[in-house]
Amino acid sequence: MLEKPLETAETKYFTFAHPPDDLKLEYGEKLGPITLAYETYGELNQQKSNAILVAHALSGDAHAAGFRKGDVTPGWWDNLIGPGKGIDTNKYFVICSNVIGGCRGSTGPSSLNPKTMQPYGLDFPIITIGDMVNAQRHLIDHLGIERLLTVIGGSMGGMQVLQWMVSYPDRIRSAIPIATTMKHTPQQIAFNEVGRQAIMADPNWKKGRYYGSAAPAKGLAVARMIGHITYMSDVSMAKKFGRKIRTEKEPRKFGAEFEVEGYLHYRGDNFVQRFDANSYLYITKAIDYFNILNGTNLSDIFKDLKAKVLVIAFKSDWLYPAYQSQEIVKACKLAGVDATYCEINSTYGHDAFLLEIEEEADLIEHFLSTVSNGNRNGG
Amino acid sequence: MLEKPLETAETKYFTFAHPPDDLKLEYGEKLGPITLAYETYGELNQQKSNAILVAHALSGDAHAAGFRKGDVTPGWWDNLIGPGKGIDTNKYFVICSNVIGGCRGSTGPSSLNPKTMQPYGLDFPIITIGDMVNAQRHLIDHLGIERLLTVIGGSMGGMQVLQWMVSYPDRIRSAIPIATTMKHTPQQIAFNEVGRQAIMADPNWKKGRYYGSAAPAKGLAVARMIGHITYMSDVSMAKKFGRKIRTEKEPRKFGAEFEVEGYLHYRGDNFVQRFDANSYLYITKAIDYFNILNGTNLSDIFKDLKAKVLVIAFKSDWLYPAYQSQEIVKACKLAGVDATYCEINSTYGHDAFLLEIEEEADLIEHFLSTVSNGNRNGG
Repeated sequence: MLEKPLETAETKYFTFAHPPDDLKLEYGEKLGPITLAYETYGELNQQKSNAILVAHALSGDAHAAGFRKGDVTPGWWDNLIGPGKGIDTNKYFVICSNVIGGCRGSTGPSSLNPKTMQPYGLDFPIITIGDMVNAQRHLIDHLGIERLLTVIGGSMGGMQVLQWMVSYPDRIRSAIPIATTMKHTPQQIAFNEVGRQAIMADPNWKKGRYYGSAAPAKGLAVARMIGHITYMSDVSMAKKFGRKIRTEKEPRKFGAEFEVEGYLHYRGDNFVQRFDANSYLYITKAIDYFNILNGTNLSDIFKDLKAKVLVIAFKSDWLYPAYQSQEIVKACKLAGVDATYCEINSTYGHDAFLLEIEEEADLIEHFLSTVSNGNRNGG
Repeated sequence: MLEKPLETAETKYFTFAHPPDDLKLEYGEKLGPITLAYETYGELNQQKSNAILVAHALSGDAHAAGFRKGDVTPGWWDNLIGPGKGIDTNKYFVICSNVIGGCRGSTGPSSLNPKTMQPYGLDFPIITIGDMVNAQRHLIDHLGIERLLTVIGGSMGGMQVLQWMVSYPDRIRSAIPIATTMKHTPQQIAFNEVGRQAIMADPNWKKGRYYGSAAPAKGLAVARMIGHITYMSDVSMAKKFGRKIRTEKEPRKFGAEFEVEGYLHYRGDNFVQRFDANSYLYITKAIDYFNILNGTNLSDIFKDLKAKVLVIAFKSDWLYPAYQSQEIVKACKLAGVDATYCEINSTYGHDAFLLEIEEEADLIEHFLSTVSNGNRNGG
């Protein structure tokens, strides 16, 4: 098998759902045409049986691994995906696409509305995790893949994994939902809602019509700061910052004085350089709407599923606590699905799925080899 | 003993530290004159041995119990304080004062700066929990009380209790710190900092010079919403709201749709009616600076303390987790202080100190009777 060095990672674009064949969205509206930004790593084998779909979280994008021309930092899950890594691109063909509603190359509220030739803004329709997955399915069709070896993702990526398990059980041979939940709880909704309120309180937001003028950067930065607190843990913050004071003091009262404050400011300011505030509204709303059960019994939700499932949670994750992953396992077991549960002992909090990589990579590597061996045996 | 019905609760004012005898603040600046708003319930006995000081939390005020003329809701800890209640005003003389830096009658950033005859704004000096307690001590002197039977408070109120234990060990016969911590952790600082950032991002804030014009209401509401999430628990939110949808739907995209969103909006909007944004900045900063150890060993911090101590924590409190209360007990034990630890099994989260009142009241009532009996025996 030829190894394609990840140094040549490249974002590609796939456009589909050209009117009148627009994508029908879960909430009834239509969207089209739709462009998905995506990247692939490794080579698809002849049987087309080694394809892995990676689903990203709220602030992620299609660039999961490697370096694109001119990049100084690699993709967001580069420590997991690459030659010889947990998801070994010498063996597997890895696909990652930016979700619809996003702002990193896929169609979202900052894209041009073909009807007005202006950015959509709030005319962009409400989208759901189901819609994101339907769009991904079009990409998978386009790539000629009938059945994915696995679909994997953490956080909102994990919700997309669960959605694949329910919407397209025959299109996946296995699934790896990580640090996620079957439905957003009121506490999780509350954190998102406060972020949205911070954005909409920014006078630059202008009901979403800020394209071409100043973006609601302060509001988006506050939203991102709230997010970052929930991604870390009490312990990881204590280890990383303690009560340390910054050396470069800001003279004014209420400037960043503690290191943790400086870190949050940095993260907030950094985020507004690369993310669209309206996308933040739409994507967090899609997350809040997420409830894979939605009236279905826990024992029925995965009843059509033949795929093997590996559920991973992290002990210190208080945003998507382990009990929510255990619910997924319970639903699998009730449906007779072959599910394994692993709870990794990390202090990183929710961010652990991106950081506590050694143990996670081992689990994923072994799980994938079991699934692909089963594959060869026609399993 | 005459019973003063709590229906006649009344806010009084005490002014001290008239220049040149200004109060010297911990960070070196001076403040004067200082007015403290305070209320008292019950009667001080002849020996002046039945006085209890109640310290309030971030958004509290002097009005802890009863109804003032025209009030429709009672004080913030009325379920604990009153005739026959956990803190029985038939037995005890209860004092509660609004902290300095506040906006509920005590001198704070919205007060007139006597040098300019304009509201202080950011010219108000940085204050600490130590400064709040020093000001309270002046009030206790003014009331002619040499030694308090107890000082009690939850959250930031608990920090003031710890400060009394360290600053004025001879002035208290007992202490009841509830749901609190000996030092603010980076996660706790982070939540406060995001709230401050939301306020300062509001263009109406104008570097604190908004008095006489529109207040930074949106920013303050966001800060309050963040606070409210941290005061509840995953479980209490799930019980109270679940994923219930509001009946009075807001038509626009991104209006409050889930009940939890409506609740947060209500709490945010309600708060801005009664709280000053600059006070929020100053008081949260005082909380963030709080570190009672500040270089002292855990075993030395309470070494001069003869008071009995009752430490109360709540199982589902993730803002001030039980381990932080256990640290207080540890420090007491290391210093040979008579300390009791009670962890109450509540699902209310941090708010439990205001809501899980039955068990808390029982513990406090029995503790107080032990301490006041010891009192009669000269203990």
